[in-house]
Amino acid sequence: MAETLKLRRVAIDTYRENVAYLHRDCGAYRSEGFQALSKVEVQRPGRDAPVLAVLNVVDDAAITAPDELGLSESAFRQIGAAEGAAVSVSHAEPPVSLGAVHRKIRGERLGSAEYDAIARDIAELRYSKVELSAFVVACAQAGMEREEVLSLTRAMVASGERLTWDGDLVADKHCIGGIPGNRTTLILTPIVAAHGTLIPKTSSRAITSPSGTADTMEVLARVDLTPERLRAIVAQEHGCLAWGGRARLAPADDVLITVERPLSLDSPGQMVASILAKKLAAGATHLLVDIPMGPTAKVRRRSEALRLRKLFEYVGDSLGMHLEVLLSDGTQPIGRGVGPVLECRDVLQVLRNDPQAPADLREKALLLAGRILEFDPRVRGGSGYALAQAILVSGQAAAKLEAIVAAQGRNPSTPALGRLRHEVPAPTDGVVTAIDNFQIARIARLAGAPMDQGAGVDLFRKLGDPVQQGEALYAIYAEFPADFRFARAMAGQASGYTIGDSLPV
Amino acid sequence: MAETLKLRRVAIDTYRENVAYLHRDCGAYRSEGFQALSKVEVQRPGRDAPVLAVLNVVDDAAITAPDELGLSESAFRQIGAAEGAAVSVSHAEPPVSLGAVHRKIRGERLGSAEYDAIARDIAELRYSKVELSAFVVACAQAGMEREEVLSLTRAMVASGERLTWDGDLVADKHCIGGIPGNRTTLILTPIVAAHGTLIPKTSSRAITSPSGTADTMEVLARVDLTPERLRAIVAQEHGCLAWGGRARLAPADDVLITVERPLSLDSPGQMVASILAKKLAAGATHLLVDIPMGPTAKVRRRSEALRLRKLFEYVGDSLGMHLEVLLSDGTQPIGRGVGPVLECRDVLQVLRNDPQAPADLREKALLLAGRILEFDPRVRGGSGYALAQAILVSGQAAAKLEAIVAAQGRNPSTPALGRLRHEVPAPTDGVVTAIDNFQIARIARLAGAPMDQGAGVDLFRKLGDPVQQGEALYAIYAEFPADFRFARAMAGQASGYTIGDSLPV
Repeated sequence: MAETLKLRRVAIDTYRENVAYLHRDCGAYRSEGFQALSKVEVQRPGRDAPVLAVLNVVDDAAITAPDELGLSESAFRQIGAAEGAAVSVSHAEPPVSLGAVHRKIRGERLGSAEYDAIARDIAELRYSKVELSAFVVACAQAGMEREEVLSLTRAMVASGERLTWDGDLVADKHCIGGIPGNRTTLILTPIVAAHGTLIPKTSSRAITSPSGTADTMEVLARVDLTPERLRAIVAQEHGCLAWGGRARLAPADDVLITVERPLSLDSPGQMVASILAKKLAAGATHLLVDIPMGPTAKVRRRSEALRLRKLFEYVGDSLGMHLEVLLSDGTQPIGRGVGPVLECRDVLQVLRNDPQAPADLREKALLLAGRILEFDPRVRGGSGYALAQAILVSGQAAAKLEAIVAAQGRNPSTPALGRLRHEVPAPTDGVVTAIDNFQIARIARLAGAPMDQGAGVDLFRKLGDPVQQGEALYAIYAEFPADFRFARAMAGQASGYTIGDSLPV
Repeated sequence: MAETLKLRRVAIDTYRENVAYLHRDCGAYRSEGFQALSKVEVQRPGRDAPVLAVLNVVDDAAITAPDELGLSESAFRQIGAAEGAAVSVSHAEPPVSLGAVHRKIRGERLGSAEYDAIARDIAELRYSKVELSAFVVACAQAGMEREEVLSLTRAMVASGERLTWDGDLVADKHCIGGIPGNRTTLILTPIVAAHGTLIPKTSSRAITSPSGTADTMEVLARVDLTPERLRAIVAQEHGCLAWGGRARLAPADDVLITVERPLSLDSPGQMVASILAKKLAAGATHLLVDIPMGPTAKVRRRSEALRLRKLFEYVGDSLGMHLEVLLSDGTQPIGRGVGPVLECRDVLQVLRNDPQAPADLREKALLLAGRILEFDPRVRGGSGYALAQAILVSGQAAAKLEAIVAAQGRNPSTPALGRLRHEVPAPTDGVVTAIDNFQIARIARLAGAPMDQGAGVDLFRKLGDPVQQGEALYAIYAEFPADFRFARAMAGQASGYTIGDSLPV
């Protein structure tokens, strides 16, 4: 009979890694014996499915007493028992699929059964961060053959739930990211839905960027909706703009991201599998992928963009999706605002046909919307752009966004811009010759976006614009003094702008 | 002026990873904004050298209050301030040397300056476990050229302190590990010291094995000694048997091990750099490396052993060490006992010329001691073994161990064997045809070794021994009921013994 301990919730959010806390003087188990072996299995006697967790040893009974076993938030949720429940602890074997990770480290090619096992174990939080990191690095270094990318994509889809929609044409759009302010989705979704094509848009929140589609939409309406609610909204409006996190779509991907981001590792194989798994699980049949190119974009060279396009096409075709790839201009941020409230302002200006609306955002949204409209067999090839423009100019797109906002639940209060404001001046006379996407995103993020909806960066000058010394290039908005200080310090180190004599031709 | 929080020690041992705890409702900093970016810098205003830590978000003011910043044990020690001291938090840049890790992931060869920066950052706990894992996997997968192994070795030595000894001949010995019961060091060190050759043996404690030299020596004497005390003992006795942890020798290695072990990654390059860095830092001029070979040893094939030998020789020679490699029999455990008290019994039987002493342990210790004695230019080539035997048989070796024990501080109480005992019987009549080193080590470890000194496994049968059904193959000793249960369950799953008709010739 196994010795039991009393379960305790330790209110520490360990960011999707299960951690168990055992007191050093625990009477039933030798905490130090477990620690070097790294992982433990925690089980409720008589139940299946133990929870795997990394072990931390505690010397403070206020956190975990000697007769208790503490679990971090994610692990506590996973075990699904009340505090005080009896649990037993044992030594964990490494997840079986780790053998396949070792083979990948040795440079071997893995098969679909191996990727299935890896994705399942990852989705069930059986991998520690050290093990996740080993998998991600091994795939990045040895590279993945395209059959492997296909296997990983299928495995990630199988690791979670799938949404289904009525109809043969379910449109979706995805940008590989990296360009601040690039909120075309909030414009093209109402255009496409107004045309009558289904576009049930589920997006993630920003992880390391200053705002994602879901964050910006949240300025206007609720985005955290159940799959049932989404279905009702899409049946009525043909479109929605929701956060996908509720639906458990390709959950293995959400776990992998927790190590890919800190490592800044975004290898082509992992990127394609991650994007296509999410879209397939979300029920998309037709997908437009936007790959921005530029010196500070994720993809810097045309050859690289073309290789990535082929990989998207191969995996998309093999999965039976209609997939098109657009290579777009990623040399600078799109629009003016960076951060939820500021981006929302830009989007509404475009939808309302405001003469002040940023032309680049409007143009790109129309281009993408036109391509998506052409997924509809009734739309003649080449006429999508004009159709999108007509829907926008007529006010139908604005009305559709209003309807979607009302259906999702309008935000009762309009979030304001951050109270703290700082302008970053041009150091000299000249012309803006470069804007560093990464640096602008970083400054907006440090300022508090997207957690503070009103935080961010508002750009006054774009590529090719003339500036005079001392004129403001952009303003930083923040709510928290610490964030304001971080963002100003970063902008002081490097503004992200290069001022020269003239744009290179 | 940066907002400050009150420093708090959070009594959680996170196993050599710095963790900072910030309350979700912290008034000065947005915890969620920091978390996805993964690392924070914690600083005492006006001091240099911030501490880098991974961030966990806390929802319980009893662990960390909103106006506090909690640090895990290692991070708290590193910042070196009292609880309540004012600290500020900022976003951490990834350690600069991580750029080199990314280049290694891309398959590039790194230079010595890059390894220096990596080892320094690792020793200063600037890498998270995710980053450590990326480095270790990248080196294992791309492999390291021998120049790189040399650079990493030098860098690891430079990351810590170095011991120096008087005299031109400072002997040392290292086994790459993996063979339970292999405690030759406790026999050969007194033999070599009795001859008059300096052998200041510093060893690590077992990490995932059931006992290391330091653990077994600790049954008899103190092993936790300051470098000053070591120096005095070696001056008097020519040898010591101490734990090396106090001396901060190649500390980067101790940090890397915290991810290598859970990943079971022990690539040749990392292994050679790790061993030679420790030995060089410990002041060795002459080193004998023991590479056991066998189907369940770390090295399974002769070709692999030879490649490893060349790598040891290349790096050792380049570092100006006199290095010799011995390929030994690693087909089964050495001696009978596995675990500190049991291994100590075997060692003392050999030193006391007890007729019951395990012959294989005696023989291997004499072989190694003979080779080390021949490092002395006055000892004629080929005569080392006989000299070692003479020192052992005469009782000089036993007397020397007694003298070293007395100098280090004799253990006032003799630890006893574990109270719980279970015999594992032979399932059938026959001959022992295989013993799985890994499984025997695992059973002894689960039984509580080395934390419980009296826990472990006592082997009654070795390769080639005839057995009858029901006869005990070995006994398991444990102190804790939970450990006893884990070890018995593991032995029940697989005893580690294969019984057949006869040994293959």
